[in-house]
Amino acid sequence: MALPLCEGMNDSNDSIDRLRLIRTEGVGPLTYRRLIGRFGAVRNAIEALPELARAGGKASPPVLPARRVIEAEMAALARLGGKFIFVDTPGYPEILAELPDAPPALAVLGDAKLLSARAVGIVGARNASANGMRMAEQLAAELAAEGLVVVSGLARGIDAAAHKGALATGRTIAVIAGGIDIPYPPENEKLQAQIAATGAVIAEAPLGTAPMARHFPKRNRNIAGLVLGLVVIEAAQRSGSLLTARLANEAGRELFAVPGSPLDPRCRGSNDLLRQGANLTETAADVLANLPDHPSRQGLARDPLFRHAGSGFAEKPADQFAPVADTEIAEGRRKIPALIGPDPVMVDEIARRCQLSTAAITAVLLELELAGKVETLPGNRVARTASP
Amino acid sequence: MALPLCEGMNDSNDSIDRLRLIRTEGVGPLTYRRLIGRFGAVRNAIEALPELARAGGKASPPVLPARRVIEAEMAALARLGGKFIFVDTPGYPEILAELPDAPPALAVLGDAKLLSARAVGIVGARNASANGMRMAEQLAAELAAEGLVVVSGLARGIDAAAHKGALATGRTIAVIAGGIDIPYPPENEKLQAQIAATGAVIAEAPLGTAPMARHFPKRNRNIAGLVLGLVVIEAAQRSGSLLTARLANEAGRELFAVPGSPLDPRCRGSNDLLRQGANLTETAADVLANLPDHPSRQGLARDPLFRHAGSGFAEKPADQFAPVADTEIAEGRRKIPALIGPDPVMVDEIARRCQLSTAAITAVLLELELAGKVETLPGNRVARTASP
Repeated sequence: MALPLCEGMNDSNDSIDRLRLIRTEGVGPLTYRRLIGRFGAVRNAIEALPELARAGGKASPPVLPARRVIEAEMAALARLGGKFIFVDTPGYPEILAELPDAPPALAVLGDAKLLSARAVGIVGARNASANGMRMAEQLAAELAAEGLVVVSGLARGIDAAAHKGALATGRTIAVIAGGIDIPYPPENEKLQAQIAATGAVIAEAPLGTAPMARHFPKRNRNIAGLVLGLVVIEAAQRSGSLLTARLANEAGRELFAVPGSPLDPRCRGSNDLLRQGANLTETAADVLANLPDHPSRQGLARDPLFRHAGSGFAEKPADQFAPVADTEIAEGRRKIPALIGPDPVMVDEIARRCQLSTAAITAVLLELELAGKVETLPGNRVARTASP
Repeated sequence: MALPLCEGMNDSNDSIDRLRLIRTEGVGPLTYRRLIGRFGAVRNAIEALPELARAGGKASPPVLPARRVIEAEMAALARLGGKFIFVDTPGYPEILAELPDAPPALAVLGDAKLLSARAVGIVGARNASANGMRMAEQLAAELAAEGLVVVSGLARGIDAAAHKGALATGRTIAVIAGGIDIPYPPENEKLQAQIAATGAVIAEAPLGTAPMARHFPKRNRNIAGLVLGLVVIEAAQRSGSLLTARLANEAGRELFAVPGSPLDPRCRGSNDLLRQGANLTETAADVLANLPDHPSRQGLARDPLFRHAGSGFAEKPADQFAPVADTEIAEGRRKIPALIGPDPVMVDEIARRCQLSTAAITAVLLELELAGKVETLPGNRVARTASP
């Protein structure tokens, strides 16, 4: 029997376990939530991991990072004055937790309570015009003065201008792509420190992670997830800001765009958003008048602008983790792998074809995911992985 | 019995009669059409005029301008190489004739056939930005290259730039507020002459009329009436361009607006149009993709953006000029004046209260109008005139 631990240490142990599970290869945000949903305590999930992967067809058990590695990361964050928050635990922003693939853990520097305040995102071009940056700064200042928190990505141009506009009130959150201890871009190092001191800086990547191209989609998803609405100022066609807008839209957030001259290519993407129905925005009043109280409180505020295969909101946790008979799971293990090919297939389609309960299908997919045989894709779809 | 006249002289006499009637005090565009609708030939209408006014309660008969005054005006226009066209006669643009208050006569210099071609209006700020004028010129050139005629108001700034963009193809119409022989504004005198030489210039006001503030609403209504759609570039709030947009919208024309920076007050009105549902326009393709074939061919292309008391399209000429018994007209003369006060009232409301036929009501209202007792207002409403 384990020795009784004081509550603080117990919490700390739980956090270490969570981070170890989150940073296990093959455990993405969706898998993490399914594991916790099925096994309740993170420790139970960790203990079940080898058996689940074996059942899914994996020869060797998944390798969790060593406790001391995680402990060192937590100590480093504590030295910076920050802390981790975990999805589906107190203090994690509810609005972000609505995303099926919400980040399982976030490192936070500064005021973590800001993450649960009513927030608006402002994003746009790195090579923004002077007018665009003035607009971003002005709009951010007005929104912050109205009590809203301004969320952005700390990039050059519009992002930095938006943070600066809200900085005096401290009502701004910088969502960064790399580790929270890595200033990026270099010219915003001072701004990043100022935001950490008066507002909040958050990062999904482990400490020490240098930001790479593959980290930015997650950064964008976190901006979209934290806000009630997203304002786009000067976004060229096929720009990162438009990707953030797409994610925000898919998550049911309200979209806003600032109009600009068609002669400026930096305005083509934002003007396109207007053409597709984003709220035309000239002042904070345009944002305030069209901001929902909370996306989940009134369902989606409106039909998403762009149609997509689906946002994954259709998942029903209650059904997913209902009790399942071993015989049904055994049947699922026999039938389901053959139904999943390299082309993505809807989980609903698998259910229709194998005629098993949602809980049984979820359990078997979890095993296959942990075995690295199957990957979960946006829109509640799955596909066989390229190299099983 | 009158001597037989050659056809040319007959046409000329008919034109003189029309212009005399059109330029009679108390005969506005609506009254003119009702008179022709009721009496068929313009000569019959002129002959009926004194009796109608007397029946309406006017002591002295309406005074028509002298024949020689009209003959001099027609001669002056002929010397410039121009001609008059009359509503509801061949050569008058059908799309303009759809307006209930279409100008009864237009002086035309240049190619009158252009008036019946598919056309788009481009209007905007006089004190336009260099970018705005570049946009107008470019858009006009693209639209003209696609075979459309570009209609504008020959003002400084956006209007002049639009005309210039289409000038090389000759596919442009300048609608002016004063007489067709009066260059205005002075700096566009050369442009006006170029348009008259390669495109067309039209005016509703009599020759020699210096443009005054009160002429511009008619100029704007004529631009709106000639086009399938209207593009607004850089219109400040409460600007004349927005009034033209309102008229175009009420006439069921498609509205387009070019987006611009909210920091530029010249873009506030045009951005407002976008907020209200105008088509966001960056290139000619945006216009072409949303231009109806013909407003009357598919009913109104869409719901008007702004709600208004009504466009007057509800008038039914067939009912209006059906035969009426003298007894019914007598009854109308007794009942109707008491139903019309200084507050505008819908003609439908009068019909409901007096229980007479549309034709009888139309006949009595015509008398009251010609007597100067009643004026017709937009939206099929009438009101007692201030000083009867």
